[in-house]
Amino acid sequence: MLKKVLIANRGEIAVRIIRECLDCSIEAVSVYSTADKQALHTIIATKAICIGGPRAGESYLNISNIIEAAKAEKCDAIHPGFGFLSENSQFARACEENGIKFIGPASDTIDRMGNKSAARRLMVKAGVPVVPGSDGAVKDAEEAVTIADKIGYPVLLKASAGGGGRGMRKAYDKEEVREGFAAASAEAESCFGNGEMYVEKLIENPRHIEFQILADSQGNVVHLGERDCSVQRRNQKLVEEAPAWGLSSKLRDEMGAAAVKAAKAANYENAGTIEFVVDKDNQFYFIEMNTRIQVEHPVTEMVTGVNIVKEQLRIAAGLPLGFSQEDVQLSGHAIECRITAENVFANFAPCPGKVEFIHFPAGAGIRVDSALYNGCQISPFYDSMVAKIIARGDTRLEAVRRMRRALEETVITGVETTLPVQHLLMYNADFLRGGYDTSFIENHLTELLSIYEAAGGKNESL
Amino acid sequence: MLKKVLIANRGEIAVRIIRECLDCSIEAVSVYSTADKQALHTIIATKAICIGGPRAGESYLNISNIIEAAKAEKCDAIHPGFGFLSENSQFARACEENGIKFIGPASDTIDRMGNKSAARRLMVKAGVPVVPGSDGAVKDAEEAVTIADKIGYPVLLKASAGGGGRGMRKAYDKEEVREGFAAASAEAESCFGNGEMYVEKLIENPRHIEFQILADSQGNVVHLGERDCSVQRRNQKLVEEAPAWGLSSKLRDEMGAAAVKAAKAANYENAGTIEFVVDKDNQFYFIEMNTRIQVEHPVTEMVTGVNIVKEQLRIAAGLPLGFSQEDVQLSGHAIECRITAENVFANFAPCPGKVEFIHFPAGAGIRVDSALYNGCQISPFYDSMVAKIIARGDTRLEAVRRMRRALEETVITGVETTLPVQHLLMYNADFLRGGYDTSFIENHLTELLSIYEAAGGKNESL
Repeated sequence: MLKKVLIANRGEIAVRIIRECLDCSIEAVSVYSTADKQALHTIIATKAICIGGPRAGESYLNISNIIEAAKAEKCDAIHPGFGFLSENSQFARACEENGIKFIGPASDTIDRMGNKSAARRLMVKAGVPVVPGSDGAVKDAEEAVTIADKIGYPVLLKASAGGGGRGMRKAYDKEEVREGFAAASAEAESCFGNGEMYVEKLIENPRHIEFQILADSQGNVVHLGERDCSVQRRNQKLVEEAPAWGLSSKLRDEMGAAAVKAAKAANYENAGTIEFVVDKDNQFYFIEMNTRIQVEHPVTEMVTGVNIVKEQLRIAAGLPLGFSQEDVQLSGHAIECRITAENVFANFAPCPGKVEFIHFPAGAGIRVDSALYNGCQISPFYDSMVAKIIARGDTRLEAVRRMRRALEETVITGVETTLPVQHLLMYNADFLRGGYDTSFIENHLTELLSIYEAAGGKNESL
Repeated sequence: MLKKVLIANRGEIAVRIIRECLDCSIEAVSVYSTADKQALHTIIATKAICIGGPRAGESYLNISNIIEAAKAEKCDAIHPGFGFLSENSQFARACEENGIKFIGPASDTIDRMGNKSAARRLMVKAGVPVVPGSDGAVKDAEEAVTIADKIGYPVLLKASAGGGGRGMRKAYDKEEVREGFAAASAEAESCFGNGEMYVEKLIENPRHIEFQILADSQGNVVHLGERDCSVQRRNQKLVEEAPAWGLSSKLRDEMGAAAVKAAKAANYENAGTIEFVVDKDNQFYFIEMNTRIQVEHPVTEMVTGVNIVKEQLRIAAGLPLGFSQEDVQLSGHAIECRITAENVFANFAPCPGKVEFIHFPAGAGIRVDSALYNGCQISPFYDSMVAKIIARGDTRLEAVRRMRRALEETVITGVETTLPVQHLLMYNADFLRGGYDTSFIENHLTELLSIYEAAGGKNESL
């Protein structure tokens, strides 16, 4: 097994990984910025090293400082968590070159799956369904129009290097393709230094369903079932569930097999996620692979019993998976609410500040992943997610009830959070019905906010 | 299912039961003393009713006030938790007479199992092994001597109505029987209003192993495996484990079958525990039945996946058990540390006071059952147990490692607690070896305390 792991991250995911390392008798070395001297991940690690200033570029994105810290501490591996350098092939390569195991796939794999048109071509070759569209990048707007005419409107223009909605435009006719292409390509050039574009059919209001993959260094690949992440606001997930409600076991098996095929085609190692969109007719299409652990991994852990971070450490140590696909059984239902410190009445603007008082729920079926403690500071420099509250039940309804109870018991004062909106969501008839699509929040947010406002904008009075 | 349950208790067990009620969509009515206005169980319930002054006799032991509250709130059931009125047959009878379901066995069963010599006779009749001794109560010291001569020394003189070590004496020869009998009988008379005594062979330094039972109203009885509770200081358990280390599956099956037989003989309903002592030769003997939920029930929940409090609510509603003995599978290992607010250097004297700051651990395999929150008061009027930290692992070693990590992360300031001693215990070679007996703490406490003292008496420096 590994002896000493550096965790190149902060917040709840760093805490999650540190705890797992300690549980496996692995020394856990934290790195922190000058803004994070009092952060939980700095406090609970075996050792913590300051790697720079508060801005991410000075610290959590500072490859050379992180590599130096790992070398100085003689760490045999680095866990990148999610965000920051987790999908940065340069960082993975720097680890490889310095003889430090990067806990994730090889740098080449990150490159291959990070370029969206290249990944798409690889999937087509492997027989994984992709959204109809151009075979890789198109050279200009006119080629995009030709292809759009062929596959039918509406279409989506996407930057090969894109992500987070940047370098992306919907187009409902020829004219919109021409206008959108130029704008999106320019945006991609300025954001990612790469203006390359490709064209896909636009699947309107699909479900966002993703499969968790584990692949060891011996070529064994299993999937751990799916997560439904359709409850999103501007591509930011608010609530995730496992399994996806109403997904037939036939479709699950087909999608799972496709996900395994995708990971094998990518020569993948470690934990990863294959994202699909599913349309109204239950057709599914690969959209991208996330080559890292995901925020929402706990819902999968709670319905499979597999400890994904532990498996990541084992795989990085060269150990084979201790189980096969047949051993993976889904049991019950799990829901996660991502609690962010944001003002829901101010367009979800981040709300950093001091946490005056905090009380988290507990009890059967409840898990809380957080880096908060009483009196801690939520920094303005980083992501506003501060806690994940996860509820498991034998049935979806039991999971929902537990989530209601857990959110009711949670108290976070000093900063505004999204919790009241998620709490209301657990009583929303359309959410309870399940099987919602990615238009859900767009269609329900105004109503949820108005109920919250009518209740005095206070969680306690709901 | 039940609609509204009154929880006749306080502290972490009341919180545990309230959460479970809410998860099952049952309204949870708390009762509280004037000392507990700000207690967590008062805050999180659907409704909370003040039932009297801070002394237990004025409130949590006040049968008529509790029954009145349940009637006023139209509760269909009362959950007594543990301690207080949980094994009081008068209370169970008052519930029965008022048409309120007592969540536990019938009052007659409590009476039958509460009288230790009667329970012993019942077990003998049912073919459950008991410690060799008198067949029920003895009339005087001379009869006790005759029996002691027959079964061999040392013997234990026990009060029929005893508990918690009161009305109990060890005797190594005739003379000690005569002296001990008079003293113990007088003590029992003054403590329990009943001086009746019986005689048993003294099993020196046995293991204390108990079996969790669930019995529904249709006569179905299953056991959920055993707990080893041998780590005790003066009959107060400090650490519990499930399963018992080194117990062969043959012995487990035999003891489990005996436990089921015992529950059936008692015509038992709801959750209960059959306590055995196991001697050096792996002979086991029934000692008593606890006719209520136990403090240490979470370790059983964590290795069986059965939610015992939920089953209690289902059984009380008249529902049959949803599973049979064959469905109960032990998976992994769980350890619980009972954290009490006590000064370990002052003979474990209770240390009530204000909790200045608290931080509990979390993460894979960790569960915390507690009624503490930041800034809360630990009352001098009640039991000093303030939190249970439970760790589960796939193996005992993994559970131990997780417990170490969890205890290291826990911070409770403002009051002294037993946590540092339990933390040291997780590194003690004899504890790690497992299979210890009830002499463990007696033989190790001085050493543990001296290590703690040498480390400055501070958890942080361990």
